[in-house]
Amino acid sequence: MLAVKIAKRSYKRTHLHQDKPANRNTGLMPSISKRGTIMPASPIRRLVPFAEKAKNNGIKVFHLNIGQPDIKTPAVAIEAMHKLDLSVIGYGHSAGLESYRSRLVTYYKGRGINININQLMVTTGGSEAISLAFLSCLDPDDEVIVPEPFYANYYGFASSTGVQVVPLPSDIENGFALPSFSEIEKLITDRTRAIFICNPNNPTGYLYSREELEQLKDIVVRRNLYLISDEVYSEFCYDGAQHISIMELEGIEDHAIMVDSVSKRYSECGLRVGMLLTRNPKIIETVLKFAQARLCPPALGQIAAEASLDTPGEYFKEVNIEYNKRRDFLVKRLNQIPGVFTPMPRGAFYTVAKLPVDDADKFCQWILNDFSYNKQTVMMAPASGFYITPGKGKQEVRIAYVLNIEDLTIAIEILEKALQAYPGRV
Amino acid sequence: MLAVKIAKRSYKRTHLHQDKPANRNTGLMPSISKRGTIMPASPIRRLVPFAEKAKNNGIKVFHLNIGQPDIKTPAVAIEAMHKLDLSVIGYGHSAGLESYRSRLVTYYKGRGINININQLMVTTGGSEAISLAFLSCLDPDDEVIVPEPFYANYYGFASSTGVQVVPLPSDIENGFALPSFSEIEKLITDRTRAIFICNPNNPTGYLYSREELEQLKDIVVRRNLYLISDEVYSEFCYDGAQHISIMELEGIEDHAIMVDSVSKRYSECGLRVGMLLTRNPKIIETVLKFAQARLCPPALGQIAAEASLDTPGEYFKEVNIEYNKRRDFLVKRLNQIPGVFTPMPRGAFYTVAKLPVDDADKFCQWILNDFSYNKQTVMMAPASGFYITPGKGKQEVRIAYVLNIEDLTIAIEILEKALQAYPGRV
Repeated sequence: MLAVKIAKRSYKRTHLHQDKPANRNTGLMPSISKRGTIMPASPIRRLVPFAEKAKNNGIKVFHLNIGQPDIKTPAVAIEAMHKLDLSVIGYGHSAGLESYRSRLVTYYKGRGINININQLMVTTGGSEAISLAFLSCLDPDDEVIVPEPFYANYYGFASSTGVQVVPLPSDIENGFALPSFSEIEKLITDRTRAIFICNPNNPTGYLYSREELEQLKDIVVRRNLYLISDEVYSEFCYDGAQHISIMELEGIEDHAIMVDSVSKRYSECGLRVGMLLTRNPKIIETVLKFAQARLCPPALGQIAAEASLDTPGEYFKEVNIEYNKRRDFLVKRLNQIPGVFTPMPRGAFYTVAKLPVDDADKFCQWILNDFSYNKQTVMMAPASGFYITPGKGKQEVRIAYVLNIEDLTIAIEILEKALQAYPGRV
Repeated sequence: MLAVKIAKRSYKRTHLHQDKPANRNTGLMPSISKRGTIMPASPIRRLVPFAEKAKNNGIKVFHLNIGQPDIKTPAVAIEAMHKLDLSVIGYGHSAGLESYRSRLVTYYKGRGINININQLMVTTGGSEAISLAFLSCLDPDDEVIVPEPFYANYYGFASSTGVQVVPLPSDIENGFALPSFSEIEKLITDRTRAIFICNPNNPTGYLYSREELEQLKDIVVRRNLYLISDEVYSEFCYDGAQHISIMELEGIEDHAIMVDSVSKRYSECGLRVGMLLTRNPKIIETVLKFAQARLCPPALGQIAAEASLDTPGEYFKEVNIEYNKRRDFLVKRLNQIPGVFTPMPRGAFYTVAKLPVDDADKFCQWILNDFSYNKQTVMMAPASGFYITPGKGKQEVRIAYVLNIEDLTIAIEILEKALQAYPGRV
């Protein structure tokens, strides 16, 4: 095979004066890359035209599909822009503004995470932190084990960087708990390089216990893997539950990479400011090389994010109380609907619900396109987009509780009526 | 070979209960990816510690090494932040804020580029536009032909996306003009997918003529390749020369991808706002899929960039006059130094100069570490970082004229004195 390939290439190299299109470039226009062709479109975006059509028909759409909090951004962040004192908005350090990084060290110390300024990189959102971790720790075709269902965009970052996602199945029936650890070990191959968790989890709201994290630590240390933990929802834990960061575990310093972001913490999704934390200096050195190519994270976002560190503690208490209420209400109401089941999420602001429908993709399209109740309907994210195992999650949807209780009340009533009317009910 | 590999994998898959580290994960800590290991550090950053040491020793360092303009950001951009009227800084559209994109359509129309809103994507800097173009148009190991010397970070974007850079040599002796087109065709193989130019060029300042662009168009259409053009310096053309965008060429609609940015245009490098333009709907569709994974470009940067569209025309005239003066001064003065040669760049704000030294890397380190004149020295970018052909550019440096004439005068005097004193002079 290889010999043939080389021969072909030499042939091409020596016959280039011939006026013929090259092998792969025939046709009327150059083709899109294979990776671009197989890259899935956002599973949520697919429904957007149906939501737009409904709105154009005068129907109010309640958005249970998105992770955009309705909570206000802290006033200190907006004020920092009002007082912006710059005459040139220039490049900053590739690892993030030094003043911001230095204040972040103090911030994390307050959370029980002791790191120094060289163990922290500011990134363009948590999204970029994940891509940079993949680029630095995994090569194309290397495998990362991810509990499933998982945030759909993880698959996008894996596709962009050539990494293979190996799903670790978890089930709605037992609240999306991790399977036994022997099941995890069964998935480890000679291409496995990392285990990647989201804690608290998007889309399931699952919150990892210290015991589970210690067991994961045991596996990654014993099998010499990385443990990447996306902790962007760490403030959103309910019933007084405590979030435990992998950066708090001991003996995992060279293995642990934490992904963080200001998006949810301060309702600043648009800033595109995230962080990557690790005590492994080789990872930081490598991440920095990739980060230098894109020059620096957004300057204005970093200035607003730095100011946000002065957000009064009251802000978080109020947000937490509000989301805790919403969760309690949502889960109770969903489980009151005949045939519907959702476990009690302990973190983040999503829950995955199983519906009595033939196909949640069809149902989510139908409810936008063919249904309304008092000129209102709801948009949900079909859970199929959060699974890569074929057929999994077919009856499930992800519901975000980013609406106030009044709107949630109406939205769940609409869902209940829709389930009664849906022709594909099972 | 392949059979052996498969056998190994099956072996591992069936022996996973054994408590042994997997093949690739032996050692005290998990290893960095191969791509991360071979990824070069920024060639400029390598000298930063020497510059810092000089500064700590009380030596003033004139920075001729960076592309950070000293020109002020337009007041309208800063004012937009002072007047920021948002209570939630939320996610925007993955393709960029609609108001901004719609105004950009008008902006480009004013430049003779007729596109609609769906032929334009806002990106996180021009950097991301290049990565997205690579991801969407090229697969790993596909080749992109790039005139050499080229902006060092192109190699970083290629490394991140697995793309192979094939250099198209150009020489300082003939002003870095493209070689004859038969030379370009010789480089085309069955893996070639794109030709990638920077116009005006960083680091050489080379400005492409309409005739050259028409010839490139002829090649890419005939060989069915993409033509990617980084045009972030389009305002910086001198002696009244006109910049021609590939988006102005006819008959290349499916092949042409233009990369743009507000960084240099408005001296807004820190905003991280760029654009990708193409009339090929398949590229837009694919780029959007990758862009959706990272959610959206920075919101505050886009608001400032949108406001910047109201920058008065006077701003650009003044900037252009200033840079034209600096260029004239710099090129004249450099060529007056015995043994130094630099061609006359017609665009951007860099020039590559050949110095009478054994090794420009050594010289750039020496001038920071072992030399000063009146307690002053200069920092330059060794050109070796802009070449991948081994040995090329060994006597060359890139000099950015982002200092005012007064500072440039001193900086060139320092360089002249340093060349007299340098032990490795040839």
